[in-house]
Amino acid sequence: MLNESNLDQAFQALSDPARRNMLSRLSRGPASVSELAAPLRMSLPAVLQHLKSLEESGLVSTEKKGRVRTARLEGNAIAEAEQWLTDRRTEWEARADRLESFLATLQEKGE
Amino acid sequence: MLNESNLDQAFQALSDPARRNMLSRLSRGPASVSELAAPLRMSLPAVLQHLKSLEESGLVSTEKKGRVRTARLEGNAIAEAEQWLTDRRTEWEARADRLESFLATLQEKGE
Repeated sequence: MLNESNLDQAFQALSDPARRNMLSRLSRGPASVSELAAPLRMSLPAVLQHLKSLEESGLVSTEKKGRVRTARLEGNAIAEAEQWLTDRRTEWEARADRLESFLATLQEKGE
Repeated sequence: MLNESNLDQAFQALSDPARRNMLSRLSRGPASVSELAAPLRMSLPAVLQHLKSLEESGLVSTEKKGRVRTARLEGNAIAEAEQWLTDRRTEWEARADRLESFLATLQEKGE
């Protein structure tokens, strides 16, 4: 479960295009650091820095076997950040719906 | 439609608890700056700074009438940030499902 401070870190991690690129890759399955780095035009230390930020946010976990570090998406953490937005959107839509039926009632009364 | 740079700003805006508090309030309907500031323990300039960051991200719009600035949620922008996460999660879940049926097939063959 992501608490407020985890949400801070998760959304912060999501605010960078290179990190979103890495998350998109990982949503299709685990990947090594070099696989994550391949499409990105940046140095390996920069890639590792982004990966560290993703790990600290809880959106990604990594495991090292021998010389290869493998990263995988933590789907549940993604789902929790998504849920925060879903809750806001549904509340906003419910209000928009109520407003619409209220205005329709006013119009009927006016006719 | 949020492009990559908009997504950067939207997720950046979401990474702060005071700004998420303001978005939660606005999901229930438009609010004045003082209504937004009421539950937050911070100076008015700090609140205005957060509101500016929300406006620049596209998640919120504001309108000034007389001396009152009213903010409202841009539900479609919230929905687009949500959609980015939904796409990643569903891709991740589809892969997890495929993996599960593959393992089930292996097990059947082994029996």
